[in-house]
Amino acid sequence: MRVKYDVDTQLLFQIGDPLDHACACTIHNRMYELANLNAVNLNVVVKKGELPAFIQSCKQLGVKGFDITMPHKSDIIPLCDEVEPFSREFSCVNHVKIRDGKLIGVGLDGLGMVMAIEDSGFPIYGSKVLMLGAGAVSGPIAAELCQRGASSVVILNRTVSKAEKITISLKKYFPTLQATAMSMTLENLCSCAPEADLVVQCTSLGMSGHQGDYEDLTFIDLLPKDACVADVIFNPERTSILARAEARGLRVLNGMGMLVNQEKAMMKFHFGVDLGPEFALEGEETLLMALVMRQLRTRRLTRKGASK
Amino acid sequence: MRVKYDVDTQLLFQIGDPLDHACACTIHNRMYELANLNAVNLNVVVKKGELPAFIQSCKQLGVKGFDITMPHKSDIIPLCDEVEPFSREFSCVNHVKIRDGKLIGVGLDGLGMVMAIEDSGFPIYGSKVLMLGAGAVSGPIAAELCQRGASSVVILNRTVSKAEKITISLKKYFPTLQATAMSMTLENLCSCAPEADLVVQCTSLGMSGHQGDYEDLTFIDLLPKDACVADVIFNPERTSILARAEARGLRVLNGMGMLVNQEKAMMKFHFGVDLGPEFALEGEETLLMALVMRQLRTRRLTRKGASK
Repeated sequence: MRVKYDVDTQLLFQIGDPLDHACACTIHNRMYELANLNAVNLNVVVKKGELPAFIQSCKQLGVKGFDITMPHKSDIIPLCDEVEPFSREFSCVNHVKIRDGKLIGVGLDGLGMVMAIEDSGFPIYGSKVLMLGAGAVSGPIAAELCQRGASSVVILNRTVSKAEKITISLKKYFPTLQATAMSMTLENLCSCAPEADLVVQCTSLGMSGHQGDYEDLTFIDLLPKDACVADVIFNPERTSILARAEARGLRVLNGMGMLVNQEKAMMKFHFGVDLGPEFALEGEETLLMALVMRQLRTRRLTRKGASK
Repeated sequence: MRVKYDVDTQLLFQIGDPLDHACACTIHNRMYELANLNAVNLNVVVKKGELPAFIQSCKQLGVKGFDITMPHKSDIIPLCDEVEPFSREFSCVNHVKIRDGKLIGVGLDGLGMVMAIEDSGFPIYGSKVLMLGAGAVSGPIAAELCQRGASSVVILNRTVSKAEKITISLKKYFPTLQATAMSMTLENLCSCAPEADLVVQCTSLGMSGHQGDYEDLTFIDLLPKDACVADVIFNPERTSILARAEARGLRVLNGMGMLVNQEKAMMKFHFGVDLGPEFALEGEETLLMALVMRQLRTRRLTRKGASK
């Protein structure tokens, strides 16, 4: 039983529309509990266009901050007083704290993945990075890797222009960086693999419930023997790419570490709290539990919809 | 551990200024838990004059309702769309629910005490009531007793005009009621006692930590042998009046039953939930625990203040 609900209880929100399947606030609340914080996080449906009114209400009620999902990730940026530069560059703000009436925004996807890679012991400094995919998390992850001294970044994507947009952004912040955008073909995969120390898989290929997977995994066999392969996907626990890399004895990471470290980064951002390494297992358990709850909820909502 | 924080979690507030010593939301949250409700109640400091902006924010965020303490109990009334008649008459609104953008206000002090008296088995219908004191809860309690068929009400108060104000209000709603206001002297106490079936002690006389008590309790000995004596005070568990009445073998009730039943009434008002009789013990434990927490908090705040 939670016994403390007093005048010092901090209120935070998870906002978006819809939020029927959202489970972030279940996870956040468990983090607050682990850190013995007197805080609560609740879902609030905020429709497109309602952000300014929502923010005013938050200020009125002394709300400490909020997390953002669709459809507000870009709309929030012009409403913030301060935004972390990479998060602004890649339009990926998903956490806002309110301090002295000012809104401070940050995106933690990239940081979460890079913290997970660091946790694995892989030496990022000086490494050559191969990014697969140029979706929402590719830019932020690449930027955080460059921030920690990655020496080159190659981004492969079906649509090359999206990859180019990221390399141009990266060069603004890291002028001496070797950044290359290429089309994601088997040929390019195979030609880039021997030069890559770190592969970060950022597409939805191989994700449970989604269509499609890499048809040919021979490029994995061409990676150097000290290479690391990180996937943003956590379900299944081992995508075909990770399974192939693991079979070769390479260092592999699935997306769970990214999620757990995002929670650590969230706690640091909102509350200045450092969750120690002993937290990792608890964090993973919490995430898995929240995902089970989401599945149950989705099933219930589907049944409800069907019975109408 | 509380595991459900999803899009259906209902948010309610306890508002006032200050709220440093408030413990209502601790109690409410436990009630929600007992009823397996997906709801959370949090404190928000709302300063005098800020009520309209607060209400607008509540509507914006889909807040389900709020409880009110000082300094808003009267200010809330003109802002409500509907107010329960007795609560409007005695300016005692302390719960507001928001339904379809409309504010519905109610005071539950009077109802809580009358439910407790009914629980004790005392037959209110046709009874003659003697109210001691004409403070904030006297009017609402008297009105609820009349609603349940009390046949006469005598109100004794140091300042007779305050008692008269209540009797005038009561006669508006119950035109055939015998309602009398008198000065609270030992003589009047002793002349009224033999005619009273039910005594409701609504002053702070005998309350722990407050100055003053009834100097002469002989009027208790003049009550009929089937009389009931109810006190709004719960600390001490037995005020001098209750102790004297109990020693005579009269039916006695302290203020705890009133508090517990206010929580029951709150659950009915906000959620339409009926807490069964098995809830009474849990409710009392929760209240006592919240009060201990308040004492601890008060002590901590006092120490903090002293060390400045």
